[in-house]
Parts: sequence; structure tokens; C-alpha cells
Amino acid sequence: MFKNDTAVVLIECQNEFCSKEGALYNAVKDVLEENRVLDNINNLLNSAREHCYVVHVPISFQQGYPEIGKNPYGILKGVIDAGAFQKNEKGSEFYDAFKPAQKDIIAEGKKTLCAFGSSNLDTVLRANNIKNLAFAGFLTNVCVEATARTAYDRGYNVFVISDCTAATSKEEQTFATEKIFPLFARVLTHTDFINQVLEGKELTTRSERGYYQ
Amino acid sequence: MFKNDTAVVLIECQNEFCSKEGALYNAVKDVLEENRVLDNINNLLNSAREHCYVVHVPISFQQGYPEIGKNPYGILKGVIDAGAFQKNEKGSEFYDAFKPAQKDIIAEGKKTLCAFGSSNLDTVLRANNIKNLAFAGFLTNVCVEATARTAYDRGYNVFVISDCTAATSKEEQTFATEKIFPLFARVLTHTDFINQVLEGKELTTRSERGYYQ
Amino acid sequence: MFKNDTAVVLIECQNEFCSKEGALYNAVKDVLEENRVLDNINNLLNSAREHCYVVHVPISFQQGYPEIGKNPYGILKGVIDAGAFQKNEKGSEFYDAFKPAQKDIIAEGKKTLCAFGSSNLDTVLRANNIKNLAFAGFLTNVCVEATARTAYDRGYNVFVISDCTAATSKEEQTFATEKIFPLFARVLTHTDFINQVLEGKELTTRSERGYYQ
Amino acid sequence: MFKNDTAVVLIECQNEFCSKEGALYNAVKDVLEENRVLDNINNLLNSAREHCYVVHVPISFQQGYPEIGKNPYGILKGVIDAGAFQKNEKGSEFYDAFKPAQKDIIAEGKKTLCAFGSSNLDTVLRANNIKNLAFAGFLTNVCVEATARTAYDRGYNVFVISDCTAATSKEEQTFATEKIFPLFARVLTHTDFINQVLEGKELTTRSERGYYQ
Repeated sequence: MFKNDTAVVLIECQNEFCSKEGALYNAVKDVLEENRVLDNINNLLNSAREHCYVVHVPISFQQGYPEIGKNPYGILKGVIDAGAFQKNEKGSEFYDAFKPAQKDIIAEGKKTLCAFGSSNLDTVLRANNIKNLAFAGFLTNVCVEATARTAYDRGYNVFVISDCTAATSKEEQTFATEKIFPLFARVLTHTDFINQVLEGKELTTRSERGYYQ
Repeated sequence: MFKNDTAVVLIECQNEFCSKEGALYNAVKDVLEENRVLDNINNLLNSAREHCYVVHVPISFQQGYPEIGKNPYGILKGVIDAGAFQKNEKGSEFYDAFKPAQKDIIAEGKKTLCAFGSSNLDTVLRANNIKNLAFAGFLTNVCVEATARTAYDRGYNVFVISDCTAATSKEEQTFATEKIFPLFARVLTHTDFINQVLEGKELTTRSERGYYQ
Repeated sequence: MFKNDTAVVLIECQNEFCSKEGALYNAVKDVLEENRVLDNINNLLNSAREHCYVVHVPISFQQGYPEIGKNPYGILKGVIDAGAFQKNEKGSEFYDAFKPAQKDIIAEGKKTLCAFGSSNLDTVLRANNIKNLAFAGFLTNVCVEATARTAYDRGYNVFVISDCTAATSKEEQTFATEKIFPLFARVLTHTDFINQVLEGKELTTRSERGYYQ
Repeated sequence: MFKNDTAVVLIECQNEFCSKEGALYNAVKDVLEENRVLDNINNLLNSAREHCYVVHVPISFQQGYPEIGKNPYGILKGVIDAGAFQKNEKGSEFYDAFKPAQKDIIAEGKKTLCAFGSSNLDTVLRANNIKNLAFAGFLTNVCVEATARTAYDRGYNVFVISDCTAATSKEEQTFATEKIFPLFARVLTHTDFINQVLEGKELTTRSERGYYQ
């Protein structure tokens, strides 16, 4: 059955993070490999394409990063310093295994940590009456968390797929998953999400979702 | 002198509106030709590229318009019915004369009438500390007006360049320009904007803007 | 039957506009009286309280209007010049006949033309899964229009109740109602809205709304 | 000197958190007392009122919490379960020592974790051309963090005043302060912020802020 109120949302599943040649691959390598994140995302995508919407949220910047401005600080300065996510370069392309299928939706315009802050993610979700969002991608406690926090504030039912995300250290991955996400999301492994939500008991109204609360 | 707090913002200067083969050219033809809008935008762009930021805000949709949803109404239904602004088709490309130069900024993601509602326009403006916005493009009383209204609400100093915009009738063009825009914007011809704002007296602080109030 | 996906949204139904002592009453008097707007809003409210949510969106400002800033222009300058909508003054209170009932919802924080730009209107609507919005209040082509435009962009089904709104001239009232609102809303009189939507045929899915398209 | 581009932003400094009778006082008590947070906020406020804007961001809900909706989960469910932040009750009032002074600005409407998601915080900041934000208040890793993250995404220069915030455990307080905030903010004690930013070297342009990077 197709759950037309549900979407799997992939944050920045691009070469910079996913490909061994990516500028930020080494930053996530430990968590990526230990948790088999790329395999898990692949499994999640396969099931999602049968059962719900798939929304991709890539990030990229024009030459010279004019979208960030002249005095960057924090993690966006890190993006510039790494030369990451430049348009028309290999690193900003979708990772081969996760390339959008024709019926997937692409939320365009992400330049900020929270996808709602710059991309049209909210527009495409609302247009399709999507209520339940399952987040996967990178970085667990930066863009995934920022986007999941705002999704909660905007009234979505938020899931974070714990083994389909990666941070730059196991400590941060664990802290986000165990301490932070439960404040505003349901945290599930991809197999539990597929079994319980996508292929399992129908997700109809909020009050019936006791099994994952 | 480069006014680094000022931008000319071009709304949907794409083939659909500007090229004789465009799906919506006939809708704007009367105003376009009578007011010589394309020539005026060209002049505006030439001066703007010397004196301030240029930001392009195109609109486009994936095949099947999934970003609009399954039950469209109003003017977005008109866009679908006209088959307009589809990605990878001629109509959604920038009009040749207005193609972005390398240092221009492109605000990506527009799917809604107001550019702030879906594109990253606000992000790129804030990142560059841009305060003064001069709007041109299409349609005068739809996307240009929606975006100018929100710009006012977000604290920008808003200009509308009256002879660089077009509506689908002279009546609507005149009503927007004379009755509506003055509520939240300064309305200037492109020559006045170029002379007074871009090449003229410096636009430094709000309190000094008496000459165009 | 209670339509729990529908709300009547009252924009600025406060003394400044509705009471003869209000600072802006004279500005809307012609349309208000000719169209019997206050009586109509009263009828709309009575039916709405039986059949759907009622959301009030008032506007008010601290002493000195710090929320508008030091160099106002456009219509917000007019608000300051009129000394209108000051907190703790009679003019900013709800008009007696339209005071919120206990179960009504109040969207707080409006300082801008578009209610979505500053109040928590979107938050309270999303929290309650409200999809259909019927707008009434003031001014037709300023705050009502700005809010209705954004509501369209955010995927709501938008109604404007034509005889429950007022502009500062009949010309502007007519132009907004006949030329502008149909671009992004269904325009109905309050009796038609009550009969067709609130008390009539159930409003279930978008595709069944042919009777008012 | 008054830094008119700078504001101290107090998140939810209300009785629920700050007063011993508050519904959530015990939740923050350990960090509050160990770090002398209330004394520190008091010192911060005293200096801020001389040197920059002060913006208060309180949260409160109507009877029955209609702003949260019928199927709450996560931390907002916790707010309801605790009966916290109800309008017209003692708990939602400002803590006596932190009551707004007449020239302070109050951002109204907060219902969500991130203040930008529902209050008019952005509106009042933009209206006053405020660029630098120093956050204090509660909870460190919930509302303060959510608001600071969005502030970063919106191009503000973000400070978090580490000893003027409290979380529900020392572990969370430390993790947020040491691991998370530096991704998108400068973390300073209140004495360092007062000395270096408010009373010290002028904060003029981004590129000159090396001393706190």
C-alpha cells in the first residue's frame, strides 16, 4: 500500500559524504562504516520507493560561495575551506546509488543547515499533503538534526532513521540519537521503520501511533 | 561606486514570458511591447551589473508538476494547463539577453508566487547584507507583487521598477503600479532608478531616502 | 457537522477599523457601510462557531512602535502617523461584537501585512490540521490579501469572504475582489460560504470542490 | 556606547523555569544552581540595558493548549503534561527579576521550540537592523539551541552565553556548550561577552571578530 502522507527525506546524500573521493568522506567514515550507513540507506530507498514518497535534499553552491557571504564562520566556513559542494563538480553530484528516480521529488535550493531555511522542502511536502517524515543522511547532528527540529515545529510527525545517518564521531552520533532526537522525533532503525511504518500497520492518525512512541 | 547593500532582483525573466515562442508570451505581449519592457530590463541589467548585486529568480517544475500537488487551483493550475516552466525545456531557460553573468547570484527553488515562500532568495540576500531591493520581471501583480509584499514585511527597502514589469492587461499593470505598490514600495521607472539610486546620490541610510519617497 | 479541517480567519477585527471611534474607521467607512460588513462578519462568526475553527489575528504595537523600526515607509508609516493599534489602548482591543469566544484560537504576534510573516498563524493552523481557510477582515487589499496570497503559497485552500472585508475605497474593494483574489482564492459572499461550505455539501477533498471553482 | 546592531535575546525567562514554584524549576535546578544562572542573567541584563537591545521571548498557551494540537508528542507533550506555561497563570509570567523594562522589546507568539518558527522575533530584529544576537535562557539544548541554529541560518552573528543557560542535566549542558554550539555560534561566558563585546572593542564588521572566534 502506498502511504501518500509519508516521505523518506534524504539530506545531502551526495558524493562529498558518500563517495571515497568526497571532500568530507573521511569526516564521516568511522560512523559510516561501522553502522553500514550506505547499505542501510540503499535498503531504505528500495522500500520507500514502493511505499511512500522519496524526497532528496541536496546542497550546492555557486563558484565563490556567494550564497554564504563574505564573512563565514562555524560549519559553513568549514564547507568553504574544504571546497565542498561546488556546483558542476563531482562532489556535489548525487551519490550514484542514491540518484533520484524519475518519480522522486527533489527539494531545491538548500544553502543552510536546516533544509526548511532555504530549500523548497516545505512547499513540496505541503503540496502533496505529506505529514510523516523520516529523515536520513548527513550530518546527524547538523543538517539532519536542524531539519528534524524544524519539521517538529511545523507540525510534522518526525522520524529519524538512526542507522541511515552519520556524524563526524561516534560520540556525537550516539548523543544525538539517544539524548536529542527523542525530544522531537521517533528514532528507529531502518529495518524497524520499514517493518512497522512502511510495510506494517497503517499509519493513519496520530493517536494510533502508540507502537513507536 | 558599488552599492553593496542593493540588488536588482529579476523575477522569472525566462523564455515563457520573454520569448515569442514562450507559452505565456501572448499573455504579457500588450504590456511588454507598449512599455518596451525587454529593452528596459536590458538597460537596467547593464547598469545594475556595474553598480549593485543582480539576483535572478527563475521558476521551474519537474515532469508532472509534483511540486504543485494533485489538486491545483488558481494561477498555478494555469501554469500546468499551459505546460509552462518545465525543467529541461526551452521555456524554462533564461531569456538569452538576460542570462546570468558569472558574478550574478541565482536564487534557486521558486515554486510559489512569492519568491520568499520557496526559493532561497532571503538566504542569499541576508548572506550579503543586502537591504535595498529593486524588483523587475513577471507578472507585475502576481509574482513580482507577492515577492515585493513579503520583502516589505521582512524589512527590506523595496523598489518596483514600473517599466521593467508586465501584467496580462494594461488595466492590471496600471492598477498595481499606481494603487498597490505605493503601499509597500517606491515605484520608479528604470531610468529614474538608475539615475537616482544606482548612479546618483548614495543610498546609505533609510532616513536619507527622502528624494524618492 | 464540525469541519475540523476548516477555519474562518478574522484579520484585525479590532476597534481601529470597526468602532466609530477607531483611528481608521473613517478610512473604511464607505465600504463598511455600503456592504454591511460588520453585520456580515457577525453572521459569519455565528455560523463558523458551530461548524469550524475560528482564528483571530489581531495586530498591536508596543509604545513607540519599536517593532516597525526607525525609518518606516509605506502603509506601516501610516499606522504610526495615525497612532493606531497601540497596546493597552482602546483602538487595539477586539471590537466588542467579535471578541474571541473561549474556544476560538488567537494567532499572536502580527506586526506585518501578511499574518504569516510575524504571527503564529501557520503554527496554530498546522497543529490542528486545518486545510481550508476563509478570510475576513481588514484591509481587503492589504493585510487580507497579503495573508491570502501566502496561504495559497503554503498549500491551503483559500477562500475570501468578499462581503466580510473592506478596503479604503470601493474601487480597490472591487478590483481586489474581481481581478486579484480569483488568482489564488475562491471568492464567496458570506451567505454562499455558510450555505455551500459550512452547512452544505461536505468539503472533503480538493477534487470535489467544483461547485465553487 | 550603544551597539545598535546587537541584542541580548532572553528565551523563556519565565517563572516556570526561574521560580522555585515553577513547574519546570526542578528540571533545571542542578545546572541553574551550580552555574548561578539567575545571577548571571541578571548581570547580563544590567549591562545589556546600557549597551544594546534586549529582546524577551516568552512562551505561553491558551487554555487546553489548542496551539499544540490534539496529538502531541516529544517535549511539547511534556509541557502539556506538566501543565506549564498557561496564559494568565503565575508560571507563564516573567520571572520578577527579568521583567521587561519599558524600552525592552518583547517578541510575541512563541509556541514552538525555535522562536523564529512562531514568534515575531525575526520581524523585530530586522526592523531594528540587529545583526548580532546573544542568547540566554532555557533550555540550553532545546529552545535556545533551536533558535540559535536558525539564527545562524538566517545570517545573524550568533553568540550563546554559556553560563546564562540551563539544560536538564549537566551532561547535556556540557555537550551542547562544548560540542554543538561552536558549529554555529560563538560561546562565551557572560563576563567575557560583557567585557569583550558590550563594553569592549567595537563590534563593527564580521572580519574583525577574530577575538571571539
